[in-house]
Amino acid sequence: MSLSYSPLLEELIRSLQCLPGVGRKSAQRMAFHTLSKDRQGATELGAVLQRAMAAITNCSRCRMLTEEDVCGLCRNPKRDSSALCVVESPADVLALEESQGFSGLYFVLMGHLSPIDGIGPAELGLDLFERRLVEEDVREVIVATNVTVEGDATAHLIADIGRRHGTATSRIAHGVPMGGELEFLDSGTLARALSGRRQLPLAGS
Amino acid sequence: MSLSYSPLLEELIRSLQCLPGVGRKSAQRMAFHTLSKDRQGATELGAVLQRAMAAITNCSRCRMLTEEDVCGLCRNPKRDSSALCVVESPADVLALEESQGFSGLYFVLMGHLSPIDGIGPAELGLDLFERRLVEEDVREVIVATNVTVEGDATAHLIADIGRRHGTATSRIAHGVPMGGELEFLDSGTLARALSGRRQLPLAGS
Repeated sequence: MSLSYSPLLEELIRSLQCLPGVGRKSAQRMAFHTLSKDRQGATELGAVLQRAMAAITNCSRCRMLTEEDVCGLCRNPKRDSSALCVVESPADVLALEESQGFSGLYFVLMGHLSPIDGIGPAELGLDLFERRLVEEDVREVIVATNVTVEGDATAHLIADIGRRHGTATSRIAHGVPMGGELEFLDSGTLARALSGRRQLPLAGS
Repeated sequence: MSLSYSPLLEELIRSLQCLPGVGRKSAQRMAFHTLSKDRQGATELGAVLQRAMAAITNCSRCRMLTEEDVCGLCRNPKRDSSALCVVESPADVLALEESQGFSGLYFVLMGHLSPIDGIGPAELGLDLFERRLVEEDVREVIVATNVTVEGDATAHLIADIGRRHGTATSRIAHGVPMGGELEFLDSGTLARALSGRRQLPLAGS
């Protein structure tokens, strides 16, 4: 006989394991903690989880997670609709917004190419992306996928689509981060920084 | 202006932080993961959380977490009601049950003495514990609190109560664990193992 808690407590511990990075031990700790210290918070979490899972979808224009049909960013008339920045995840949109370096619109892939997991162009919504290039007046596509094998492959695919529609496509620069010291950087980053070097203006100019 | 996701997504990320060990970054990862990969699991978790927080209480005899008035262990007529093992948490009950070394009943403190957090004898249910010593035929109390400063203090307090009611009180042995090699053990454990040494039978007996 396998030992177990009361049926409802077991169900709670099992259900908590649907969260990423949560195994049986963590789920147990979460169950005990909420039951003894924060029943109200956990009850509210239960209600929010149900509402969120039912209501949150992807923005019909940029695929950002939102409970509205079109997200706040896409509806903002102050954004420059001629520039489109392609990112992997909603968190990337927030990071770029925080940098205040981009005033255009976004396209969120919600992942990256990963054939082994069955994630191809369709799963990344690239048909929707292509339709935007056709229907809207997009002058520049800026690819900001991550610097990983999958992110690189995804960037190539997007550059292909941009080329096919005659839209200028660039990728954000990779190199030494602010405050980075050369001796502590990995060789991959340094190699990228070298190959992406830019000519400095000549003296006096 | 602080940047944020859509209101419902923000609410989900904030609510998830009621779980222990979950900060904003983890909560974000949990929200994205469940929304994109396991909406059904998360919806079920939402329902279970609400049911569990409303229904799970402490067993009225041993304080174990259960949705019933008296837990399964306390109701089991095969258990030896003359021995009472005192533990800190429900997980300890399962660990001891797995060891198959104890057939008596339990008393779960749901914590340990910690005056700084306002946890005193009342919060540990020691009045209920004392009533059991008075009303029931408990012949031995076995203290299995953790080997920490708080666990030791709690053990002393329980021993005092046992002594007051003339009930034999013991504490489980601390020493070298099975498969433990002396050279890798901490000195605290070794000191406990030495002071708790037991006489071996004389040759031939």
